[in-house]
Amino acid sequence: MSPADLKGIIPPVSTPLTADGEVSVPDLERLLAFHLDSGVHGLFMLGSTSESIGLTDAQQESVIATAVRVASGRVPVLAGAIDFTTNRVIDRARRHERLGVDGHVVLAPFYIKPSPAEIVRHFTRIAEAVSAPVMAYDIPGAVQTKIDRGSLRILAQAGAIVGLKDSSGQEANFRGVLLDNADLPEFRVFTGSELMADIALALGAHGCVPGLGNVDPAGYVRLYEAFIAGDATAVRAEQDRLYGLFAITSVAQRPEVGWSAAAWGSFKAALVVRGVIAQAMPTAPMSPLTDDEMARIAAILEAAGLGPVA
Amino acid sequence: MSPADLKGIIPPVSTPLTADGEVSVPDLERLLAFHLDSGVHGLFMLGSTSESIGLTDAQQESVIATAVRVASGRVPVLAGAIDFTTNRVIDRARRHERLGVDGHVVLAPFYIKPSPAEIVRHFTRIAEAVSAPVMAYDIPGAVQTKIDRGSLRILAQAGAIVGLKDSSGQEANFRGVLLDNADLPEFRVFTGSELMADIALALGAHGCVPGLGNVDPAGYVRLYEAFIAGDATAVRAEQDRLYGLFAITSVAQRPEVGWSAAAWGSFKAALVVRGVIAQAMPTAPMSPLTDDEMARIAAILEAAGLGPVA
Amino acid sequence: MSPADLKGIIPPVSTPLTADGEVSVPDLERLLAFHLDSGVHGLFMLGSTSESIGLTDAQQESVIATAVRVASGRVPVLAGAIDFTTNRVIDRARRHERLGVDGHVVLAPFYIKPSPAEIVRHFTRIAEAVSAPVMAYDIPGAVQTKIDRGSLRILAQAGAIVGLKDSSGQEANFRGVLLDNADLPEFRVFTGSELMADIALALGAHGCVPGLGNVDPAGYVRLYEAFIAGDATAVRAEQDRLYGLFAITSVAQRPEVGWSAAAWGSFKAALVVRGVIAQAMPTAPMSPLTDDEMARIAAILEAAGLGPVA
Amino acid sequence: MSPADLKGIIPPVSTPLTADGEVSVPDLERLLAFHLDSGVHGLFMLGSTSESIGLTDAQQESVIATAVRVASGRVPVLAGAIDFTTNRVIDRARRHERLGVDGHVVLAPFYIKPSPAEIVRHFTRIAEAVSAPVMAYDIPGAVQTKIDRGSLRILAQAGAIVGLKDSSGQEANFRGVLLDNADLPEFRVFTGSELMADIALALGAHGCVPGLGNVDPAGYVRLYEAFIAGDATAVRAEQDRLYGLFAITSVAQRPEVGWSAAAWGSFKAALVVRGVIAQAMPTAPMSPLTDDEMARIAAILEAAGLGPVA
Repeated sequence: MSPADLKGIIPPVSTPLTADGEVSVPDLERLLAFHLDSGVHGLFMLGSTSESIGLTDAQQESVIATAVRVASGRVPVLAGAIDFTTNRVIDRARRHERLGVDGHVVLAPFYIKPSPAEIVRHFTRIAEAVSAPVMAYDIPGAVQTKIDRGSLRILAQAGAIVGLKDSSGQEANFRGVLLDNADLPEFRVFTGSELMADIALALGAHGCVPGLGNVDPAGYVRLYEAFIAGDATAVRAEQDRLYGLFAITSVAQRPEVGWSAAAWGSFKAALVVRGVIAQAMPTAPMSPLTDDEMARIAAILEAAGLGPVA
Repeated sequence: MSPADLKGIIPPVSTPLTADGEVSVPDLERLLAFHLDSGVHGLFMLGSTSESIGLTDAQQESVIATAVRVASGRVPVLAGAIDFTTNRVIDRARRHERLGVDGHVVLAPFYIKPSPAEIVRHFTRIAEAVSAPVMAYDIPGAVQTKIDRGSLRILAQAGAIVGLKDSSGQEANFRGVLLDNADLPEFRVFTGSELMADIALALGAHGCVPGLGNVDPAGYVRLYEAFIAGDATAVRAEQDRLYGLFAITSVAQRPEVGWSAAAWGSFKAALVVRGVIAQAMPTAPMSPLTDDEMARIAAILEAAGLGPVA
Repeated sequence: MSPADLKGIIPPVSTPLTADGEVSVPDLERLLAFHLDSGVHGLFMLGSTSESIGLTDAQQESVIATAVRVASGRVPVLAGAIDFTTNRVIDRARRHERLGVDGHVVLAPFYIKPSPAEIVRHFTRIAEAVSAPVMAYDIPGAVQTKIDRGSLRILAQAGAIVGLKDSSGQEANFRGVLLDNADLPEFRVFTGSELMADIALALGAHGCVPGLGNVDPAGYVRLYEAFIAGDATAVRAEQDRLYGLFAITSVAQRPEVGWSAAAWGSFKAALVVRGVIAQAMPTAPMSPLTDDEMARIAAILEAAGLGPVA
Repeated sequence: MSPADLKGIIPPVSTPLTADGEVSVPDLERLLAFHLDSGVHGLFMLGSTSESIGLTDAQQESVIATAVRVASGRVPVLAGAIDFTTNRVIDRARRHERLGVDGHVVLAPFYIKPSPAEIVRHFTRIAEAVSAPVMAYDIPGAVQTKIDRGSLRILAQAGAIVGLKDSSGQEANFRGVLLDNADLPEFRVFTGSELMADIALALGAHGCVPGLGNVDPAGYVRLYEAFIAGDATAVRAEQDRLYGLFAITSVAQRPEVGWSAAAWGSFKAALVVRGVIAQAMPTAPMSPLTDDEMARIAAILEAAGLGPVA
């Protein structure tokens, strides 16, 4: 894979489980086929939405092996090497490479409270130790550290990272990253915000990694294609529709349900409603949604014109 | 091990590394002997201070194997099963059990934003899945989630956890935990604050897990023994002296050095000064201290009367 | 003033001081004339950038009286009624009305940690107690509370607020506010982000309240007029240029200088460089910028083509 | 007043209101008498618990005038000069001095994000501008800024502040302040934590400013007197009892009730139950407690042996 292959819609693929909490390979195969049939431009396995942090090492390897097999070279397969610090990420990324991933997605070091110099050292050492390209994943809401523009610039210029997935929700800073690196056409910048994909593209981003893209990948692909075609009206209409669809993530507002369970669980619930996967089981210890919540999600989907997948 | 064996001073043992970043087993053996010779009442391996999150799985197993071998049953060996969510902790804890640990130290689920119900489910499932006792480790500064008093009470009553290590720095809440569970004499409560060990003991805690105890374990043991002997004056004098010694953690205040590198690195630096270990190498990507910083730490140690270990 | 008069560029006017810390009315008059000559569509006095919270009550009244006199009805004059809670805001807003302001800008209640119901009660009571229209000012970075979409919707529908100034930096949520209230054409939505004015307008906002607009009001007016004229290329070019100019806010990165002093002080420094005001004195206790920092700001201005005002 | 007069229990006196939200002077007189009859060593008016930030300037002056009149020189009357920045605090403090207060309680500058140098400048200028002594009030939970140990040390040595009220909840840091300034016997240190008064005294603090002291001032006075008498058992018994009583602050856990309304409102509710004041009206926009919540607070009081005041 060359970095230039990274563009468009690369959904962070949910990880379907069986009732006893194991990865359901048949469901995952169907979900991957659903994405590929919808025209997505890449697959991001083991991201946040994928509940990477809820899967054991063996389960993670099963997910990657399945994705590589199903994708079969048609689109790039990226995988999150989600771990605390440098050497742990390297170990994990090397295992992923042996399974055939095309690129790694790597967080700032966390649990420790890193300085910018430590952030730069982290990505630099990882890039030296692995073969496939590394994309930085900025998600301060999860790891408490923001990867600052200065560090990104150093890493981009050095080629230690080939791109960025920005899930910071800090759009003005995101714009700064794009301006900073406008002289590096190979540097690929993606937004993780499914609610601002159109804006990110307008600002110069190369694509979007939308969690909500699990539910309606075709919608995001249409949005991207309309953007490439220069049809601003169509882009806007898709994004506004998808903004409304995001309401599914707020359905499970009970004290028993954490934020992650409500959001990631709503995507799985929608995939059940659409007939793509068999059940909406979360990884432990996240709380499952109730039948009532599933029904309310189904109603939102119906209102959005999203029925069962043929 | 019975929970009643958990008491006194249980240092979170630093992990000495070689120049190329591998666990230095000879140094670790010397450090463990230093602790045991100082009279500590237990060993906590793979905690925060131990840079658990900087060590690969293989390195973690080397640390545990060494500690179990050196301790040789004289004191309990606890190990942090530091991971994001339930099933990952279970995998890790089972590996640790095969290596002979006496108990597990487990964080709230993190990266996800768990509800109290999800926190309770996390510890409950882990306790069901492992053999050795589980101690909860509350460190919201690292994992963003505080384990609330209500959840601790449920878990303590159910026996899912045998105790708590509180590194929240929220002393008033800590007192509440002690009051809540005063009817459960088996429930063992430790503070992780090396600066408030005397207060924690006075409030009813069973012991302390002091990071600074790596540098002066004998001091903490004297503090504990003076407390048991009812010698309040001696307790206070030790704690005030140790409070001053904590200044070593603030020596490396450069922008290049993150908070964790400065604090954990200062303990390793002091161990080098005292002749216990050979070098103060941190796990990647943390920045090492400079010779000048080492010299300033040496001066603080000298002022505190802590010379080379005979 | 009708709410429909609120549109376009409404700068949060800096408050020039004399060397002894009093409001410099002559400098303020020149600054107001500079804004009006540049074509701004309104004036926002006593906002954050204006150092409202650094001015005594008497100084605040001097600022408002001057603005009302200079504006002389040509553009609306809004004033921040910046205070903690309901009755204090009402007292302040009534004083401002006696001085002739056209509208009030009001924060969420702060210091207390309000519930959404308390936020709604706050704005509702204020609207009932004053005569001029009230605009909500959402700036969680300053007051720790985010005004949630649900509360804004209730207040907009009830007419308790005629608009919103959003300085949250949460662009995706901002978009939600616009979508929520698309059926209320009178509801006026402004962004406080000088770095995302173009995006806010594209999303349906009615204007921008740019702190950086103190330095280059003509640039923001051109941006707005290009947007109205449908010239997307010109809009983008202005915004990108202004994004670069924002670098002046990062010049004073010394430990002695707080964030606010560095940002608000850089606007005053630029106004000195441009010859609009006589000196860059901040309100106490903020640290003034050094001559070296002033020179670096001058260099950034020169590079941006912003010389002394004729 | 000399700083040495500041010691013991100095409750932050609640501000009773009438049904229409005005200060109820008769109720305030009764509450002040209740405190004085209970033996408190000073009165702190217009603090957080007093809802200072909910009272208009005129109401604040009424509160101070009443307190000065009722205290009549028997105990020191301190008043919060609660405002954002230096000159605003000075204006307020001067008004308070004209009304006869014995000392000022002053926050770190807020709304701005001050540097340590700016914090030092703030207190230094205020001390120069007023006549009565100034006590620093550290409450980062309300104002987002922690007054660091270094700044406190500079200000204490310079005599710019005569003491500290610490409501940070950071007990280990509080201990450091006491150790840092142990060579300044005139420097008076108070804790704002009603749950850790015994610990603060044991660490060397001179007294406590307990919000819960509104409900049971006699209990806190007994705690203090037992401490002075060296009766550790009696100190502990009082503190443990008062810890339990603090449960009243958690009674109103409805989404409609903000944290401040629940806590401060519970003190007023308890004062109604005890017959000291006529009603538990909060300042706007805080939500009042319901009859059911009042009844649950009454039950907690009854269990604690706190009946109507004779």
